[in-house]
Amino acid sequence: MIYLIGIGPGDKEFITLKALKIIKKADVLIGSKRALSIFEHNNKVILGKNIKDDLKNAIERYKNKEIAILSTGDPCFSGLLKTLKSIGINNITIIPGISSIQIAAAKLKISWEDYHILTLHGKPKNRDKLLKYLKNNENVIFLPNNLKDDIKYLISNGVNEELEIYILENLTYENERIRKMKLKDILNDEFSYLTVCVYKGEDD
Amino acid sequence: MIYLIGIGPGDKEFITLKALKIIKKADVLIGSKRALSIFEHNNKVILGKNIKDDLKNAIERYKNKEIAILSTGDPCFSGLLKTLKSIGINNITIIPGISSIQIAAAKLKISWEDYHILTLHGKPKNRDKLLKYLKNNENVIFLPNNLKDDIKYLISNGVNEELEIYILENLTYENERIRKMKLKDILNDEFSYLTVCVYKGEDD
Repeated sequence: MIYLIGIGPGDKEFITLKALKIIKKADVLIGSKRALSIFEHNNKVILGKNIKDDLKNAIERYKNKEIAILSTGDPCFSGLLKTLKSIGINNITIIPGISSIQIAAAKLKISWEDYHILTLHGKPKNRDKLLKYLKNNENVIFLPNNLKDDIKYLISNGVNEELEIYILENLTYENERIRKMKLKDILNDEFSYLTVCVYKGEDD
Repeated sequence: MIYLIGIGPGDKEFITLKALKIIKKADVLIGSKRALSIFEHNNKVILGKNIKDDLKNAIERYKNKEIAILSTGDPCFSGLLKTLKSIGINNITIIPGISSIQIAAAKLKISWEDYHILTLHGKPKNRDKLLKYLKNNENVIFLPNNLKDDIKYLISNGVNEELEIYILENLTYENERIRKMKLKDILNDEFSYLTVCVYKGEDD
């Protein structure tokens, strides 16, 4: 039995009872170092840079066991579901988790059904969608790929560098930081790789 | 202190540890009958049909207490955040919850970053967005307002009645039901008011 489990944005308190129950009785936990560090368990397999091979090998090794694969956030949003499908693993049960997108909405007190939601992680086409939304003044929540590169791209394609967006870093962690910044100022700063961005357009 | 708490899609197991902790120590729980029925507490205020007045009155009555307002799903997705804002209550702390949208994605093993997400609850303009997406064969997850009315509207505006969508009812409840149906067959059936619909377009 393979469970793919969303463990939430980082702070363990955002995990669901259901996820916790499965993690406790699993024979093995598989996940990134960051994901595994949150839970105590006597059998952990850390996924390295060759994530697909590592996943395949671990699943093969424990094939008759209860496997819990941990995905930060929600496995169905920019999470491990796609990775598993790409290596042909479909016979899984998925437990959703709280995404950092949801924490961002909660922090800014906005309703995400009024926002376009985009991830730029490995999706270059979405940069152009983002460009279009910003030029049209439409609400967007997005996960940057490389924030400074992404902002450079927007400015060089005609978005006003005075435009302000919210930058939410390390949500639910101790070093959480939320700022409203002009695009031009983003180019001269440093950011966590755990960053969510929000643009409040004219609809909000 | 006012907490607005997402309690998830229905099954109590999908609540987060953080939400549970706040609910346990709150002086009063405020919510719909469905939301309140999930938790034991010695002080509950049920919201009736005049939801805005009921919320205002309850918040006024308990103004120096710890108030936990329960919202099924995620308060920031088609949830109580908008209702609270509309009556001028902004000084709140929001705890996100698992939305039925996320359960639908988990059940169908799809990644929701590849889908348009729409709610038709009280948003007539979104019917036209839905129409456009279906005609363009784009992926959509949507919450219907009145499913049969919505489908009638789509067909009468040119969507092929042979088109198939997934209908997911009462997710995480004992009477959960997931079906793939042609639009024309939806018109001759009955559905729960807790329904999520998914159209897998050509991108998925």
